[in-house]
Amino acid sequence: MQIADRIEGYLGGKLLPFWLERVAAPEGGFTTYFDRNGRPTGQTDKTLIQQTRSIFMLSHVTRAGLGGGRAAELLGPGLQWFLENFRDTGHDGWYWIIDKTGTPVSTDKIIYGHSFVIYAMSECALATGSPEARAAAEHTFDLVQKYASDTAFGGYREMFLRDWQPRPGGPYGGDRKSFDVHMHLMEAYTTLYELTRRDIHARKLREVIEVLWSRMFDPVSWTGIAQFGLDFTPLPAIMFRTVWGADRDNEGEPRPLDNTSYGHNIEFLWLFLHALEVLEERVDPWRDRLAVLARHTAGFGVDQKYGGLFVEGPRNGPARDLQKEFWQQAEALVGFLDAYILLGDRAYWDAFVRVFDFVWSKMINHDVGEWFALLDRDGTVRWDYLGHAWKNNYHTVRSMIQTLARLRKIESLGLAP
Amino acid sequence: MQIADRIEGYLGGKLLPFWLERVAAPEGGFTTYFDRNGRPTGQTDKTLIQQTRSIFMLSHVTRAGLGGGRAAELLGPGLQWFLENFRDTGHDGWYWIIDKTGTPVSTDKIIYGHSFVIYAMSECALATGSPEARAAAEHTFDLVQKYASDTAFGGYREMFLRDWQPRPGGPYGGDRKSFDVHMHLMEAYTTLYELTRRDIHARKLREVIEVLWSRMFDPVSWTGIAQFGLDFTPLPAIMFRTVWGADRDNEGEPRPLDNTSYGHNIEFLWLFLHALEVLEERVDPWRDRLAVLARHTAGFGVDQKYGGLFVEGPRNGPARDLQKEFWQQAEALVGFLDAYILLGDRAYWDAFVRVFDFVWSKMINHDVGEWFALLDRDGTVRWDYLGHAWKNNYHTVRSMIQTLARLRKIESLGLAP
Repeated sequence: MQIADRIEGYLGGKLLPFWLERVAAPEGGFTTYFDRNGRPTGQTDKTLIQQTRSIFMLSHVTRAGLGGGRAAELLGPGLQWFLENFRDTGHDGWYWIIDKTGTPVSTDKIIYGHSFVIYAMSECALATGSPEARAAAEHTFDLVQKYASDTAFGGYREMFLRDWQPRPGGPYGGDRKSFDVHMHLMEAYTTLYELTRRDIHARKLREVIEVLWSRMFDPVSWTGIAQFGLDFTPLPAIMFRTVWGADRDNEGEPRPLDNTSYGHNIEFLWLFLHALEVLEERVDPWRDRLAVLARHTAGFGVDQKYGGLFVEGPRNGPARDLQKEFWQQAEALVGFLDAYILLGDRAYWDAFVRVFDFVWSKMINHDVGEWFALLDRDGTVRWDYLGHAWKNNYHTVRSMIQTLARLRKIESLGLAP
Repeated sequence: MQIADRIEGYLGGKLLPFWLERVAAPEGGFTTYFDRNGRPTGQTDKTLIQQTRSIFMLSHVTRAGLGGGRAAELLGPGLQWFLENFRDTGHDGWYWIIDKTGTPVSTDKIIYGHSFVIYAMSECALATGSPEARAAAEHTFDLVQKYASDTAFGGYREMFLRDWQPRPGGPYGGDRKSFDVHMHLMEAYTTLYELTRRDIHARKLREVIEVLWSRMFDPVSWTGIAQFGLDFTPLPAIMFRTVWGADRDNEGEPRPLDNTSYGHNIEFLWLFLHALEVLEERVDPWRDRLAVLARHTAGFGVDQKYGGLFVEGPRNGPARDLQKEFWQQAEALVGFLDAYILLGDRAYWDAFVRVFDFVWSKMINHDVGEWFALLDRDGTVRWDYLGHAWKNNYHTVRSMIQTLARLRKIESLGLAP
């Protein structure tokens, strides 16, 4: 299969070498600060997201049998540096940003980041058998239950001060819940349960799935709602005053309440199917709503003119933000293939191809190996760096590994159109 | 004040001696199995409720400066025996029932019991400074957050197998939530927070208060609803297949959905006021609904003919179960005095007196010192034992200490009618 072969060559020949040669920071831990030519930008702050996603990426590569053992070699010292430098030994949990000497820069406890600790430590333990990684995954899970679970309304609070007091409300996020964080907790608990097979991890996975489906989706269009009050009242999404390294935008008016993210919806689809697989549960009860979700994403999210997936739009109608950001493309490749396998509808194969063609011809910087961060609708490069604190290696490497696996499965089952 | 003086004499001269002479079991731990004459019944099984309530009682007596140091003397070895014998070192948490040799008899993890571990260990640490008691309180709190909090709907699941998997549903209780257990968690978290002043303990206290007020009360009559599905749908209350030692009843038809317990309502009133006091929060926002609750209890729950508090009845109308059980009387004494102090309405003083007169003339076995378990409406003794696994010393001793304190306060403020 032509696309599969292209991905296989690119993954092994370009994308993995890009990261395996660059990701180890000279001062310890990992770095992901690279310009459009793959040269270090000079930034050195370490973020929780960047370190855990790099650990996840190297673990995921190792589990896939790729990288020729180099990924596993990098994991050992990187994991050790992370465990020694990012843990808040005073209040427990993990710092948000530290500098290259290990001095904390932002000590808030952000659940988005803690979900990636659980995810990365679990994947690392699955890849290497590391007991430290497993202990860190299980202990972080326990901390999230104790400090973040909202026993008044269900779900989780998401942003805390260093001592685990909730941050103030409004732009500090202490009184909001989000689709994004709950989806990433689902992702993290899935891999934690795959590792431990402990009942409590399966139970909390089922509970966060319940929250997502019953509170965080619009039950007509089965599209995700971005933000909520603590009691799950939907709220227009705002940006939070949290330093993420470099966010796509961090000010401006709140989003309209009927706004939905195509990328989150299609990412949810495949992460949810993976959760069901790990839980060994049947997909049938969910098939109809997943079909509605996939139809919305393919119908409104995919650019029929230039290819690729738009950023966001309303629950019923054409997209409003027509830019093309890297991570939505990465998740749509996997999600549309899963939708095609699940639903057997050629439309999802076509959607996959439209996104893939855009990624291949516009998003990937083939000369260097990684993807650009943000393009205009027609593929003009708008943000040209290949890596920063937040745009690093988790979406792109996982997408290529998971897309290739699905294409090979489609091939072997004779399902290709 | 005549009633205060009578209580003071009875508490120091009869009730405390009853327990201080009998509560230490010869084989270690505490015993509460006594017949109407205060003689051991021969039962020896140790229950989680019985041990923790005895530890609470001795700690509460010590904090009140009563018992002449004897309560504190009994606490030391009793606490040690409890910590060594009741802890499940395999799955963590606490056994439900063990025999006198320390062999587990019922290993299920019951949150009702775990709330009493938190309550008793906190009170013990406040009374004696014991670091083991404090550690047990904090660790049990952490376990409850991890295993019992329901992150799908809020609140807590209540009944688990030994390994913390939820018990099956229906009569095994794994799919129900109750007013009773959530009220006792409020009680336990209040004393835990009084001990630690840790933000997380205050936060979970506020959250369980939110669950009680917004999910577990009927918002017209402000009377408690006994049982719910996991999503807080009110359900007719059933009895569970859990050995409590000796329950008042453990079979029969489910209760009508509009049933409410006068004892739980008035107990909630004073435990909630105490929680606000420890949280240093104002009572004003709650005054109106507390007045509705108190009016219901005094109007329908108090027996105008014989005195005392009935067992239960509908949300709007006269009582259905006219028996007089010991614990409702104990809690009503404290609750009606708090209602009188809060609301300044003579009706609650009168309700207090009506309950007190019944307790003094019918419920207390003055020859021996403790209260009978269950009386008919007119005071005829129906269940005559003074102690068993579940009816022991927490309600009666706490009631006498707290009632006396309130009477002295009313006296000193010149509020007596």
